[in-house]
Amino acid sequence: MVVGCPNIMRRALGWLGLATQWEVVTLSSVAQQATLTPGQMGVWVPPGLPVDLLDAPVGQVDVRAGRAAAACIREAVRLAQEGLVAGIVTAPLHKEALALAGEPYPGHTELLQAEGSPPGRAPAPVRMMLANDALKTVLVTIHVALRQAIEQVTQAGVLETIRITHQSAQLWGMPRPRIAVAGLNPHAGEGGLFGDEELTIIGPAIQAAQADGIDASGPYAPDTVFMRARHAPDHPGEFDVVIAMYHDQGLIPVKYMGLDQGVNVTLGLPFVRTSPDHGTAFDLAGTGRADEASFAQAVRMARVLVAGRAVRSGS
Amino acid sequence: MVVGCPNIMRRALGWLGLATQWEVVTLSSVAQQATLTPGQMGVWVPPGLPVDLLDAPVGQVDVRAGRAAAACIREAVRLAQEGLVAGIVTAPLHKEALALAGEPYPGHTELLQAEGSPPGRAPAPVRMMLANDALKTVLVTIHVALRQAIEQVTQAGVLETIRITHQSAQLWGMPRPRIAVAGLNPHAGEGGLFGDEELTIIGPAIQAAQADGIDASGPYAPDTVFMRARHAPDHPGEFDVVIAMYHDQGLIPVKYMGLDQGVNVTLGLPFVRTSPDHGTAFDLAGTGRADEASFAQAVRMARVLVAGRAVRSGS
Repeated sequence: MVVGCPNIMRRALGWLGLATQWEVVTLSSVAQQATLTPGQMGVWVPPGLPVDLLDAPVGQVDVRAGRAAAACIREAVRLAQEGLVAGIVTAPLHKEALALAGEPYPGHTELLQAEGSPPGRAPAPVRMMLANDALKTVLVTIHVALRQAIEQVTQAGVLETIRITHQSAQLWGMPRPRIAVAGLNPHAGEGGLFGDEELTIIGPAIQAAQADGIDASGPYAPDTVFMRARHAPDHPGEFDVVIAMYHDQGLIPVKYMGLDQGVNVTLGLPFVRTSPDHGTAFDLAGTGRADEASFAQAVRMARVLVAGRAVRSGS
Repeated sequence: MVVGCPNIMRRALGWLGLATQWEVVTLSSVAQQATLTPGQMGVWVPPGLPVDLLDAPVGQVDVRAGRAAAACIREAVRLAQEGLVAGIVTAPLHKEALALAGEPYPGHTELLQAEGSPPGRAPAPVRMMLANDALKTVLVTIHVALRQAIEQVTQAGVLETIRITHQSAQLWGMPRPRIAVAGLNPHAGEGGLFGDEELTIIGPAIQAAQADGIDASGPYAPDTVFMRARHAPDHPGEFDVVIAMYHDQGLIPVKYMGLDQGVNVTLGLPFVRTSPDHGTAFDLAGTGRADEASFAQAVRMARVLVAGRAVRSGS
């Protein structure tokens, strides 16, 4: 179901020429969603949604849009934490609009981290997973210079990434995922010949994870581990997830076969959360020309990841 | 044609149960190769080939094998430099055997560099290209720790890599290849936000190459440039070659769809040279169980790269 504004959804359907094919149903309970039929779109209105949202300009930073986005995310988190929904797919969010609305969080992930943690507790550590049907990869370090990424590859960081990955896989109904850990250096250092991070940092982190009963292995040569983990009908992958040490190590293979296949999954939250791998594209807003492929993939990936996960019935 | 020992080829055919299907023909001139019919294998015996090669143990380091390998490579280079062959495909080589034979070169590439350069001149700078049907990538740095690779990404090194790539493409009948240059950092540094090598090193090298009339562009975000360059029947690549800053940046995408598709091409030599992307596999020698796929790809890639390149007739 959509957590959002029924009027906004109706307007969007109109822009796309789908108004006659879809009926927007404002839900009075979450359970009602299960009673809808194809062609009906259930919309759950979060508390605090601005009533004058239709007046906000399209494709521009606006305080009402920021307030609406924050209200929707908070409500989606609440529904997930109460077990009423199995996962959340977030649409792109404009950070400036969020700031205008007085939100203290720079983006989605921080808001989800804070809202997803018990009150008074520090936000749970999260990791970014990029996934498509063929490959799942979780990043130890993200948006920093490559030099800094190398410095940020610590034993504690690698171990935490492995643990978060292992725990998140439980949400996907995968009790003992086969976790491959990539090396940092070419050929995983070839025994210390090309760098020693595999011996001093990554290897010990893997051993600590193994001591916890986690099926982690490596460090593997980065140039072949993603190929080995790749799943295809004619090529069963050797691993379920690959831990990548830095942004491009993991994202190059995920994106190689096509950008619209990459879905962002936040690990470490107590629920499944996916999002498309692109921004708000304000220049396309309202034109009907935005490409829905990545968002559709994000929905599909969320469905795959929550498969088998029980949800409560009732509101 | 094979540059090697006819007896060794006959023995290999016997091991594979192909002795009755193939006739090994010892060539008396290079031109004779063109007169052979399917089912005939032309072998050109290089000067200095040990006569007792059949006595050398299989799958072990042996001085005779090292001498034979060096003799074959030298002769192949001579044939290429005289224009009698259009390119060379090298089989894996054991470095220890080469050393036992008193060769001063640690491996193939150094031997080819030295033999391929005019006497008295310093060996020409070379670069390693990894290629398959979908992607060609040339590496600025190779087998060093990632930390060191970052240090080795210099303006001169990037520019030289672009120039060698541009010149090599002439050998392939591609007068003005579209060369994409990857950044070093995530999102190519996002304007200096995540590292400045794109602004201070890679960008200026690209501009210098452009000033020479080379169709080089970038630096591009590493996580999407390989996907953008990928060629497939339904996906024409935007670029002909991608310059990668470090080993795994280039090799992860080349190998992602399958290891046996990766072919090693040495750029900077005055002739086309390819080789399979694996070692000697002594444990498989003589068993008939070695996988020929990568070697076959190397032969095929050499044929593609030399297509349209004229060779002299005569010996």
